[in-house]
Order: sequence, then C-alpha cells, then structure tokens
Amino acid sequence: MRAKNFNAGPASLPLAALERAQGELVDFAGSGMSIMEHSHRGKAYETVHNEAMALVSELCELPKDYTVIFVQGGASTAFAQVAMNFLIPGKVADYVVMGSWGDKAVSEGRAMAKVVSGGEVHVAASTRTGNTYARVPEQSELVLTSGAAYVHITSNETIHGVEYAVTNRKPFPKVSAPLVCDMSSDILGRRVDFTQFDFVYAGAQKNIGPSGVSIILAKKSMIEQGRKDLPAIFQYRTHAENQSLYNTPPTFAIYLVRNTLAWLKAEGGVLWVEKRNREKARVLYQAIDESGGFYRCPVEPLSRSIMNVVWRLPTTELEAAFVKEAEAVRMIGLKGHRSVSGIRASIYNAVEPEWVVDLASFMKDFAKRYG
Amino acid sequence: MRAKNFNAGPASLPLAALERAQGELVDFAGSGMSIMEHSHRGKAYETVHNEAMALVSELCELPKDYTVIFVQGGASTAFAQVAMNFLIPGKVADYVVMGSWGDKAVSEGRAMAKVVSGGEVHVAASTRTGNTYARVPEQSELVLTSGAAYVHITSNETIHGVEYAVTNRKPFPKVSAPLVCDMSSDILGRRVDFTQFDFVYAGAQKNIGPSGVSIILAKKSMIEQGRKDLPAIFQYRTHAENQSLYNTPPTFAIYLVRNTLAWLKAEGGVLWVEKRNREKARVLYQAIDESGGFYRCPVEPLSRSIMNVVWRLPTTELEAAFVKEAEAVRMIGLKGHRSVSGIRASIYNAVEPEWVVDLASFMKDFAKRYG
Repeated sequence: MRAKNFNAGPASLPLAALERAQGELVDFAGSGMSIMEHSHRGKAYETVHNEAMALVSELCELPKDYTVIFVQGGASTAFAQVAMNFLIPGKVADYVVMGSWGDKAVSEGRAMAKVVSGGEVHVAASTRTGNTYARVPEQSELVLTSGAAYVHITSNETIHGVEYAVTNRKPFPKVSAPLVCDMSSDILGRRVDFTQFDFVYAGAQKNIGPSGVSIILAKKSMIEQGRKDLPAIFQYRTHAENQSLYNTPPTFAIYLVRNTLAWLKAEGGVLWVEKRNREKARVLYQAIDESGGFYRCPVEPLSRSIMNVVWRLPTTELEAAFVKEAEAVRMIGLKGHRSVSGIRASIYNAVEPEWVVDLASFMKDFAKRYG
Repeated sequence: MRAKNFNAGPASLPLAALERAQGELVDFAGSGMSIMEHSHRGKAYETVHNEAMALVSELCELPKDYTVIFVQGGASTAFAQVAMNFLIPGKVADYVVMGSWGDKAVSEGRAMAKVVSGGEVHVAASTRTGNTYARVPEQSELVLTSGAAYVHITSNETIHGVEYAVTNRKPFPKVSAPLVCDMSSDILGRRVDFTQFDFVYAGAQKNIGPSGVSIILAKKSMIEQGRKDLPAIFQYRTHAENQSLYNTPPTFAIYLVRNTLAWLKAEGGVLWVEKRNREKARVLYQAIDESGGFYRCPVEPLSRSIMNVVWRLPTTELEAAFVKEAEAVRMIGLKGHRSVSGIRASIYNAVEPEWVVDLASFMKDFAKRYG
C-alpha cells in the first residue's frame, strides 16, 4: 500500500512517473540499456533531455527571451553561485528575508561576495520576529538600494510555511533591479507570471522530481550579464550556451523530471494542479482553524503557504505523540523541521487530495482524544 | 537482450544493481514509497547512505585518518572547487597534465585562483605532443614548486586512454606537497594505495554509479586545511563534518552507488575486478597489436589505460563504418571522443568480459573484410 507521504523534500512523486521509470529501468525503449547507462551525448538521452526542458518551458509559459537550464546542486549551491555570477565588484544586492532559506541565501551570498568580488549583501527587509518568521513583508517595508545588482526573494519558505500569495493582496515585490527568486518549494505548484523575474532557481525535489538537479529559468539578457572571469563550470552562461550539456548532467534525475512533468501535463497542467493544491491547503488550514485552539498555525492568514502547512499543538509531548500515531497509520513526514519543531505537512503536487482528507480526519480524531 | 555497452560515461552498470533498483523502485523495503521519496534525514535513506560510505571506505581500504564525502557536481566542478579550497592566497599549485581533463583542471583552477585568491597554477609537466597526449610523464620530468599548496594529477585520461600503470614502471608521482588526484575514470577499477594521496575526487558515472554524484576520499587533515571563509556549501569541510548530509544529497544516485558497490563486493571486490579489467584490456590491445597495422593504438605501451582503450583505423571513413557496423550488432559507444576522433572502448568494471571478447572477434572480422 502506498504511504501517505508528507515529506518536505525529497518528497512524494507521482506514482505514474515512478511506474514508468520502473517499467523501463533496465531496458529503455528496447535499447538493452537503462536510460542511466546511455551517453548524455546520444540520441536516446538527448530526446529525454530536450523533452524535459520543453516541458518546463511550456508548463511555466516562458516567453522566448527566457532560457531553461538544468544544473547540479540544489538551492544551497545557488545561494553562493548567484552571488558569484551577479554580485559584481562594487555593487550591492538586496535580499528580502521571510524565513530560514532567505536567511541562508544572505549568509552564503555575503561569504561569496567577500571572497570573489567585494560586492555587498544588503537585507532589504526581514520579517523575523523573535526566533521565527510568520509573514511575507509588505512592499512598503522594503528598503531597496538604487542601482542594486539584483533583489533576491524566496517565494515559499519551506520551514516556516510562509509564501507570497500571488494575488493582489500579497504579490511579489515590484522592484526596478533584476528580480531573483528561490522558487524551490513552490515552482509549478501554481500559475506564476515568470516575466516578473529575471532569474529563478529551484531544486527539483519538491514539485518536479528527485533530489540531485536544479532548474533555472532566466532571462537570456540576465545570464549574459554574469561575470565572465569565473571558471566555466560556475558561469550560468556556460550551461545556457550548451543546452545544459557542457558537462555530464545528472541524467537519471532529469529523466525523472521529464516523467514528473509529463504526468503534470497529462493530468491537466498547472491550472489543474493549482486548484488541487489550493483545495488541499484549504482542507488543512480549516482543520487547524476549526480545532478550537488545539491546533494553531503561527503564520498570518494572508501569508500561509499552500505547499507547506505548519502548526503547533499545546505541548511538544502532544506533537511527538501526533507524529508517532500518524506514522502508525502510514502518514509520513509530519514532523516539523528540527530548527522550529511543531508539525508540518508538505502537500506538493504529487500529494494526493485523499491523503490530505485522511490527515484532516486524523487531526480531528486526535484532537478529540487529547484535547 | 542486453546491449554491449562501451560508453565512456555515463556507462554500463551491473545488471544486478539495476535489477535491484527496479524491483524496489516504487516500494522500498515495504515502506510504500520509493527510496527517492524518502527524507534524507529519515532512517531508511540514512541506512543506504551510510552503507554506501562504508562500502567506499572498505573497498578502497581507507585508513582511519581518511574520510569519504559525497557531493554533487562531477570532476568539472571539482576542478574549480579544489582550487577554491586549497589554492590559498600567495601559494602555487603544481599540475601534471597528460590529457584533456588535466588540461581542463589547469584552466578552471587558474580561473578560480584569479577570482578568489591570487594563488597561482603552475604546469609541472605536460606530455602534450602536437595535438594529443600519448603517455604518462616520468617522475624526472616534473618541475615541482617547493612549498606548493598541492600537486594535481589525473590518474586516467578518459579521452586519450593514458593511465598511470600503478606498477614500479609507471607509478604515481612522488611529491612532498599534498597529492590531489582526479580518479573519475579508474577509481575502484584496480587496487590503489590511497595513502599516497591527500585528496581524491571521482565522478561516479564510470565505475561506481550513475551520473549526478561525486565521491571524495581525503585525509582529514587536508580537509581541515581548506579555506574557512568560503560559502559553507563550497567548503569540503562542511560536507565532511555533516556526513554528506549538510544539504539534500542526490539520494537516488547514492542509492545506486550503494547497489553498484554491493555488487562489486559480492563478486569478489577490487582484486577480482582488477584481474577481470586487466584481462579485458589485454584482449583488446592484443587485437589491436596483432592486426598487422590495420588498427593502431597511439598510446605508448607502458601508459596504456585498462579502462579506456583507444585506437585508430587507416581512414576516418573506415572508423565511421566500424562504429556503424558495431552498433548494428549492438556494440554501443565505440566512437572516440569528438575532440580526438578514432575508436574508444571504455571497459569499466561493469563491462562483461564476453562483450570484450565479442568486440575483439568483430575487430578481426572487420579487418579481414576491409583490411
């Protein structure tokens, strides 16, 4: 029986994508070889690679002046690599922080700037309160640098469950500098107008595949602005110019991205999954809000993530019991991030609505027994 | 029917490792989830991760003062990252070049040094002749820098088929500075005394798994000498201190490394595979040398690789016909690297001796028909 998998990443993948991989794992398309044994310069893999890139482009509705890149290393690598490429000497980059990942982007960007360029990292806004984050910043709070190299945001904070709402109430910031976004945990979870961004990066292991590959969507002109004196491997330009085949790509991870996005497209695309994701989130937030205070979501209503729903119970003992009892009925991955504790249900694209309904029932029952 | 796969990497994997992956791809150990859907912080994955690290340690016979690290990015990333970590300001690093990959290590290391440290890359020896490389340098040719940060070598040049013989006739260089080695294409293909090295890196996609992960074996004291002012993600120290779980690792690639090394151990380990590899190489070099000049290996006998056997035919037209006819009988991946042309048979650990015997027969037959 399939587990109800609420892992934060690596996370649940569509069963159809996994079964497709399983069926042809040893013998891809009658070639007598696994797709992972094929050369990255051969026709069989090239077809998969190009289809994966085209699916990203199509599902994100990217205009012609944008490019798609696959690279190794997740968001943690991009934190440093973005600064390496774009925070050129003498410049300032503005960072908007609404959670731990934005905070990490600041410290890694700052370290990189110090050793390669002497550029400066400036925190344009932080919604940190005490030890935590509970909201998206308002546009009016941003202290932006004129002539900044870029403004960096995190669209969804996986640990704190804080996300830009992408409605007119909590839109992405309007800025004049190039807008860079870490979209690791909500890319393709809802429709987004990518023309707002100059550079978007996302580790695959939430909505689009297994760990081991990141996807970059960028304006071609932004890529061209990157430093040219870096080692070739660290220049995004290199990968853009070589269709992500400059060096050996993580072929099997990209193959699984292809399978996952093919599933998404076949099921109905981004609008279909957005509706499904919003409904899953609605069910969980309702279960929290209607628990009479037994469950408590620390995030302000307009900033609540539709990908990572976080909540607390009256005591940490009850939280531990909740996780344990949930596991006993095969609801996996509900323990909050070790840095914040509590409960977290990650409800990415591949998480089935029925699992969420079951989780809400479980919550109700648990509250009745312990509340 | 299984193809006879002579790809240079990504390359053939043991059928047993693939079938094991296929069997449990959708449901790992009755968990109701694929191993790639498991959290990298959970017990199921942790067991796999630790087993993979332990297998590397055991098969390489690493002493206690060495550590094993898994990182994303292949050798191309390491070219830059090694210089970033160890080529500290004011220092010189010596590079020994006997092929294209060593050459790339020089140019990437040099670029990195320029932007981060002002350290200097010095070519201690290059066996380039005209447009190509055909031999390992002698110890006496090395022009070493006193007090160098490190000496960098490539144990096997995949494109040119040039390899240190690891016998007393062509041993690894003896140097007083720390010895760094790119062992991507021959690690675990034969027994090596790793205590000669301070830092070894290897992309997995030749002898140890699929593309998308690299393995590092290093003296703990070397790791500690790395720069501490780099972004955490780029410091090897970070990954060593966190058992390669600082950030999300490429879990499925590491799982496949586990499967591949478990196969190697079960079959008889490194001494077993070395014997097998030497015999495969012997069969092919004999087919070349006994062809009456129809086939010609450009590499000097003592420098010939047991992993990548390269040879030429009288004309490029015949080479194209050779590759095409071989493909028709399901011998895959025999085209030489686009930068050098000719024929190349990569005969890594998972390549079956029967395939090599078949290839030698095919060569004989082809020579008879066209010679």
